[in-house]
Amino acid sequence: MKNLQELREGLDAIDTALVALLAERFKLTQEVGLYKKAHQLPPVDKQREALQFERITKLAEDAGLNPEYARNVLRLTIDEVVKNHKAIQGIKD
Amino acid sequence: MKNLQELREGLDAIDTALVALLAERFKLTQEVGLYKKAHQLPPVDKQREALQFERITKLAEDAGLNPEYARNVLRLTIDEVVKNHKAIQGIKD
Repeated sequence: MKNLQELREGLDAIDTALVALLAERFKLTQEVGLYKKAHQLPPVDKQREALQFERITKLAEDAGLNPEYARNVLRLTIDEVVKNHKAIQGIKD
Repeated sequence: MKNLQELREGLDAIDTALVALLAERFKLTQEVGLYKKAHQLPPVDKQREALQFERITKLAEDAGLNPEYARNVLRLTIDEVVKNHKAIQGIKD
């Protein structure tokens, strides 16, 4: 069995990878925001969101991750994305 | 410039990787939970948490990710971990 220090080093390494992936994710959503502005599409797309929540639930279930937790992370992420897209389009909340 | 469909495929691919990483993260925290139970350590460790928040803030800033968003994801994650650790130790909220 690993000791606490070793386990925590593993967690820190995963968090480093998570931040890198999330940063890449926001680079892509920044592009989506510019695309939506250029094509006059609204920041929020409820149909796409529903598909994303359905997809993350299935992925979480298959990976043994609490689906409710996964959906909460996605909610937080989409809210941040929408905030950014509104800023790109000059829409105030 | 990529079209919306291509960008969304990129986002879905990142979400698949995120779920895989988070599932690995919870496997490690499950081990931490068992370690804490075996060594009679409390589920919450505020000193470790403070270091994690400091670390994620620095990582987010370096990666160009909103540090507040990164801290919110970490908060959600630690709350889920503590819930699991309490369950392992048979502590009710």
